[in-house]
Amino acid sequence: MKIFGYFRSSAAFRLRIAMNFKGLSYDYNLVNLQSGDHLSDDFKRINPQGRVPAIDIEGNILTQSLAIIEYLDEVYPAPPLLPSDPLGKAKVRGIAGLIACDIHPLNNLAVLNYLRDQLTAEEEARLAWYRHWVKEGFDGLELILGANVETGQFCFGDTPTVADICLVPQVVNAKRFNCNLASYPEILRIFEECMSLSQFADADPMNQPEAAELA
Amino acid sequence: MKIFGYFRSSAAFRLRIAMNFKGLSYDYNLVNLQSGDHLSDDFKRINPQGRVPAIDIEGNILTQSLAIIEYLDEVYPAPPLLPSDPLGKAKVRGIAGLIACDIHPLNNLAVLNYLRDQLTAEEEARLAWYRHWVKEGFDGLELILGANVETGQFCFGDTPTVADICLVPQVVNAKRFNCNLASYPEILRIFEECMSLSQFADADPMNQPEAAELA
Repeated sequence: MKIFGYFRSSAAFRLRIAMNFKGLSYDYNLVNLQSGDHLSDDFKRINPQGRVPAIDIEGNILTQSLAIIEYLDEVYPAPPLLPSDPLGKAKVRGIAGLIACDIHPLNNLAVLNYLRDQLTAEEEARLAWYRHWVKEGFDGLELILGANVETGQFCFGDTPTVADICLVPQVVNAKRFNCNLASYPEILRIFEECMSLSQFADADPMNQPEAAELA
Repeated sequence: MKIFGYFRSSAAFRLRIAMNFKGLSYDYNLVNLQSGDHLSDDFKRINPQGRVPAIDIEGNILTQSLAIIEYLDEVYPAPPLLPSDPLGKAKVRGIAGLIACDIHPLNNLAVLNYLRDQLTAEEEARLAWYRHWVKEGFDGLELILGANVETGQFCFGDTPTVADICLVPQVVNAKRFNCNLASYPEILRIFEECMSLSQFADADPMNQPEAAELA
């Protein structure tokens, strides 16, 4: 397997965590988003959308982090990253979706660049934007985690799931943008729990090969 | 089952299509996003995130349209809305994710309101923003649909899947914002194919009970 990723991409971070849980090794292809590698013809032949991560599985290219992780979970079922019952699955996917659809897309590099270049938003306004969408999403998520009887050591029960795999990169990113996370004790507790595991910690952007040069 | 939705919400539109395919009846609870019903304490007791759709299944509240649709597809498997093999599933979920993560979240009402109120973006700038993210996503999707050998009558094969369920609301929305869709013959062909089916057409925002009053 060959993964096309970038250390700071939250979506690539998710995929790294899942690969670590499944114990899968892979060739790593750096796609430097800062220098525009993702917009090159070479990369667009792999993913016409020009986004990371993408994975090449014996010539089949898969894109979209959650679609890839669900694939891995089906083909390499141990350890499972989703509960076995439909309701449990829906709750885990609901948390994953809250983060992956309602927070992360608003705060990725392409969006922040659009705000700067097309809407001439100053750094302060871009930071306020970033923090606003984290707050909108985390306010809801903190309440959901507090209310769900299934919340355990992790977002759902006592083993990590796709929900935690989405949560951790979002928290790492929020910390990098100095978001105030004081009102999210449940989110922070689960984040710390996750980061005590090597599968999450090893996937941290700062532990990737390109971090030393590009961070 | 009880659905909390709004006629113009693309995510609620997706859920309506899936319910139509599964032949499921439900009580409909209008959450008027224009008048702020979603921010009320009453609704936040149902979905603390304050978003539609939400579904109440015998007291279990599920949120996030794709998580709910995957649940329905597991519990009511006919007709299937995902292929049966893992690679096929991943490709369908990849298309769904491209739309649900990379286009729609940038163009929803809350975001357009933030641009207007916090970033004082004029209508022209808001429209340019809307069209930019549709173009970014559809440019990639058109190439993907053109390249995939699995593209058939619909986004994947000859029966509708979750990919089509995401595509149709996004096209309806793009048309409402007068996006130029001339460079997307595959997307438009599949859109027309879908809209010839009652499951899609009946779910159209303009065919919802509140449309007459609120549109």
